[in-house]
Amino acid sequence: MYYEKCRLERFFINWYDVIRTMELSENELIRKLRRFGRKSGSIARGIGDDGAVVDLKQGQYVLVQDALVEHIHFEFAFTNPFNVGKKAVYVNVSDILSMGAEPLYFLVTLGVPERFSYRDVQTLYKGLDRASREFHTHLLGGDTVSTKGDFFIDVSMVGKVVAVKYFGRNKARQGELIGVTGYLGESAYGLHLLKNGSAARPANRYIRRYQSPRPPYDVWKELVKNGITDAMMDISDGLIIDLERMMTESKTGAHLFLDNIPIPPILKKQGLRTLALSGGEDYQLLFTFPRDKAAVIERIREKGFAISIIGEVVRQRGVRVFDGDREIKLKTKGYEHFGTTQ
Amino acid sequence: MYYEKCRLERFFINWYDVIRTMELSENELIRKLRRFGRKSGSIARGIGDDGAVVDLKQGQYVLVQDALVEHIHFEFAFTNPFNVGKKAVYVNVSDILSMGAEPLYFLVTLGVPERFSYRDVQTLYKGLDRASREFHTHLLGGDTVSTKGDFFIDVSMVGKVVAVKYFGRNKARQGELIGVTGYLGESAYGLHLLKNGSAARPANRYIRRYQSPRPPYDVWKELVKNGITDAMMDISDGLIIDLERMMTESKTGAHLFLDNIPIPPILKKQGLRTLALSGGEDYQLLFTFPRDKAAVIERIREKGFAISIIGEVVRQRGVRVFDGDREIKLKTKGYEHFGTTQ
Repeated sequence: MYYEKCRLERFFINWYDVIRTMELSENELIRKLRRFGRKSGSIARGIGDDGAVVDLKQGQYVLVQDALVEHIHFEFAFTNPFNVGKKAVYVNVSDILSMGAEPLYFLVTLGVPERFSYRDVQTLYKGLDRASREFHTHLLGGDTVSTKGDFFIDVSMVGKVVAVKYFGRNKARQGELIGVTGYLGESAYGLHLLKNGSAARPANRYIRRYQSPRPPYDVWKELVKNGITDAMMDISDGLIIDLERMMTESKTGAHLFLDNIPIPPILKKQGLRTLALSGGEDYQLLFTFPRDKAAVIERIREKGFAISIIGEVVRQRGVRVFDGDREIKLKTKGYEHFGTTQ
Repeated sequence: MYYEKCRLERFFINWYDVIRTMELSENELIRKLRRFGRKSGSIARGIGDDGAVVDLKQGQYVLVQDALVEHIHFEFAFTNPFNVGKKAVYVNVSDILSMGAEPLYFLVTLGVPERFSYRDVQTLYKGLDRASREFHTHLLGGDTVSTKGDFFIDVSMVGKVVAVKYFGRNKARQGELIGVTGYLGESAYGLHLLKNGSAARPANRYIRRYQSPRPPYDVWKELVKNGITDAMMDISDGLIIDLERMMTESKTGAHLFLDNIPIPPILKKQGLRTLALSGGEDYQLLFTFPRDKAAVIERIREKGFAISIIGEVVRQRGVRVFDGDREIKLKTKGYEHFGTTQ
């Protein structure tokens, strides 16, 4: 593997030339891409071998792997290779942080269709590189394969647990409060704008959030430093569906209070509140914490960090949302608008 | 992300139902698939969270990632989901072994097209499970995504270096001998048989080798135990092209002696010797070693292990093949027949 490889079977005569081109260009490519494999004292052997070798200290490590597939997770009409590269790193960093760990290393498999130029691939790597520098994580190698169909990128990442104990979805306890970072629905609203023809306009904060969902590292660090939580996950499919998953893993339920959910005013104004509850791709952090930590949360907020306390963990299974005293019935948790409130 | 997730954008109305089905079925699926995440003392948290958590001792670890893409690396006409699952583990184990490490953990991303049934996915997981048991490695999680196009499987794997020093392609030294395990060309001949209509026949050893290329772990262990080598790689694209890569990394060249290359008699008889030199997918181990280790190699062979000494490392760059005193001109290294000898 490791860029030089191209184990391609010769089933299809019409693929000969593509294969030939790929093989040659992959060898060229690896020379160019090696510069993205930045040096680090702990990396004994990086890009260019059957595998990478790293020196690890004793401890707990987190392993994650997450893919973005064209036409499923994104359209190139609404983003570009640079941002896809960044996002592939971000979504994995987001998973690493959610476990209470700091990212260290990653590998990447690219599935590259014929229509891709090597310049596209290089641009994508520049995005990977940019995001990896932001999070001090190192590219160690991976695999580049041609595909007959759509583009995909699959990143695996290793992180080291830095929280006192690793975080888990299964660690929420009845009576705890539920917190969330940042604003919800921004990314989904960005996609909404793009789909409604805003692609040509300069990217606003929502479109940028959709294309480049940088995980909220600084606020995460505050949460870790202050030992706020040990039940955390990132919101990727939408607040309700992801919270429900956390509650299921913890054998608990949740009550949410609509007024407390950080919904951007523009979404309320446009009747798109549902995007904040079930739009997905927020990559904000969802966590629970004991009530006696509420004062610490307040102090973190006073430093300027966006954290909202949106509900509480209860014994009864399921996630219920309240608008004042009135319960809102959610038609579905992730894919449809939620009934009466719009 | 971890099986439960399905960050699917809603671009395509006609995808709604597929997405709905996937989401539900992925939740079902994870319950069924969790049993494949076998317990181990070092796994603090396995399948079911944003990431897996493992306890690692201080030491050197190897990270690899390698994908199999339908229509590029294989056709379902010539194999089945069970074998594809096995092979995805094998090719990564092969890379881990090539670095002087034992496999420990792996994650897997599946790209699943609509036409796949959940039974197919389960069968594939059974293959993953079978292979992982053979090599005492543990599935920790990963990602399942739907694709509009072809099937793919991408495995990342972590191993621990057990050799005195990790192996590298860059460690061959001028004057050393070149060894290879097993027979070459078996897998390519198996594919040749399949392409020529033998799919219906019971699988012979060649077809089995193609569909299920188990890495030669026992002979690898002998090589490690006896400190034979520190320059190793697996043959995935073909002997010549892979050896050339190793020589390039080591800034050396190689002379190979055709008579010593382990070519199955049936390939010679059928004029298909080229499959042994450049057919690819052998997943045998290629390594170099100092001449004074030749006696140890002989003792390992006497135990019944298949190892051939096929050439020597020389100063002059490039790989040259000799048939007796006569040099054979290779038209290409990986994809075409080699000129005069057939």
